[in-house]
Amino acid sequence: MAAQQTVGVVGLGLIGGSLGLDLQARGCWVQGLVHRPSTAERAVERGLANAVSTDPACLAHCDLVILALPIPLLLKPDPVLVAALPDTAVVTDVASVKAPVLAVWRDCHPRFVASHPMAGTEHAGVEAGQRDLFKGRPWIATPDDSTDPEALARVEVLASGLGSRWTTAAAAQHDQAVALISHLPVFVSAALLRAVGDERDPAVRQLAMTLASSGFADTSRVGGGNPALGVAMAAGNTEAVLRGLAAYRWSLEQLEEAVLNENWQQLHQELERTQSLRPSFLDQGG
Amino acid sequence: MAAQQTVGVVGLGLIGGSLGLDLQARGCWVQGLVHRPSTAERAVERGLANAVSTDPACLAHCDLVILALPIPLLLKPDPVLVAALPDTAVVTDVASVKAPVLAVWRDCHPRFVASHPMAGTEHAGVEAGQRDLFKGRPWIATPDDSTDPEALARVEVLASGLGSRWTTAAAAQHDQAVALISHLPVFVSAALLRAVGDERDPAVRQLAMTLASSGFADTSRVGGGNPALGVAMAAGNTEAVLRGLAAYRWSLEQLEEAVLNENWQQLHQELERTQSLRPSFLDQGG
Repeated sequence: MAAQQTVGVVGLGLIGGSLGLDLQARGCWVQGLVHRPSTAERAVERGLANAVSTDPACLAHCDLVILALPIPLLLKPDPVLVAALPDTAVVTDVASVKAPVLAVWRDCHPRFVASHPMAGTEHAGVEAGQRDLFKGRPWIATPDDSTDPEALARVEVLASGLGSRWTTAAAAQHDQAVALISHLPVFVSAALLRAVGDERDPAVRQLAMTLASSGFADTSRVGGGNPALGVAMAAGNTEAVLRGLAAYRWSLEQLEEAVLNENWQQLHQELERTQSLRPSFLDQGG
Repeated sequence: MAAQQTVGVVGLGLIGGSLGLDLQARGCWVQGLVHRPSTAERAVERGLANAVSTDPACLAHCDLVILALPIPLLLKPDPVLVAALPDTAVVTDVASVKAPVLAVWRDCHPRFVASHPMAGTEHAGVEAGQRDLFKGRPWIATPDDSTDPEALARVEVLASGLGSRWTTAAAAQHDQAVALISHLPVFVSAALLRAVGDERDPAVRQLAMTLASSGFADTSRVGGGNPALGVAMAAGNTEAVLRGLAAYRWSLEQLEEAVLNENWQQLHQELERTQSLRPSFLDQGG
């Protein structure tokens, strides 16, 4: 990444704050933009950016602007923000859903690049940003025919400079893959907690709580997470999540049918297949 | 546990071998019984018991016999084994399903106690036994009106002596709780792997593999486990597993309906509930 580059980071939560820390460490001058003065103050205290303002005009001298905003704000962007983005700057985002973001932003800025660094922790807000969050993690861009190739290359340099593994994909394919791998597990896992919680016999429910072990803990982890995040996944990627849920329901029915028919040979084959499938996700995954 | 007690352990796999190690360390004399001479030899080398035989007659002097056999062997017990059990001995088992075991064994031995130490690792066989496997883990007995209270008390002393947390429950309630907490997660998790593996677009499938992160890894862990174990769970506890799957399907449909109707308020409430449910399993679970 070129030294002395001026990078604007809009939103200094987990992703924006982490970007601010890493970019400064790599010699960039980072201009933060946040909504509330109290957030700006805390972001300065934490050193998330070289300067933090609540006025979009602060972005005037940026070569690159990263929109690290929640999906709803990205889908209905503040016109003042859009107007403040320099035409010459490369603009990118970090949202986990790409098709709707691309649909809005391809008309908002000539050098917009839709991208998604896949990194996270359970924390959020101005206290959450941390160093090296993106190291070794995937960073997917979803260019379409409107995407400026030079702008795309600039975002690749950014991602690689932070240690991410760069990939490109069509937005619809990205959104479906993320639905399967990241959004679907939340609902699959939540439904497990719900099923046990709905058990009518209080003795069984109590015993289930006493007996729960690591298998239950792992399978229920993401279903017991931040409700707002689960809603954002479903609301931001509804169609792909519904497709994923339908595929999941079908899969579960195949297993259920084998149990119902006491077809243990078929069930064994099914479980052999899932056993052999899993390592392909772990070997390549971050 | 009384010193000099003679305990028979039938089967020296993960559970039997671990019991043999712990019981010897606590001053018991342990007589192992296995099927194959090569297993007997290896069990002696590993010190899983004081003596290991392939002849059920070796159990003649045991005060307590623990049947650490796979469920199918327990449900159709070898008549020679049943005949070799001293009438005066307390006999217990370690199977993860209790109602069918109790139904068979209440007529096989006057001092049978159905019990289930909930402990395990991913390993199996004569190499798997290890010290302190039961420490801090639940050990549930499922007495019925045929159970000798004095025999039950002896098994409690055994379980407590190995550091387990002792509980009793009705066999049917135990089996339903285990179906929800231990068996259901396997199928829920396997169906997730299956759904992603069945994705028809190879680019989406490949991208999903690249993007898989800890959420997917956790939710898919038990579904990518030993197929034989999954089949044994379903085959040994079919009715309760089917009830669990039906309850799960209903739960998932409620979440799916909220997404389908884009009822984000309802989805948020659902996920708030699952978030609040999860700690009750982790606090009490082992």
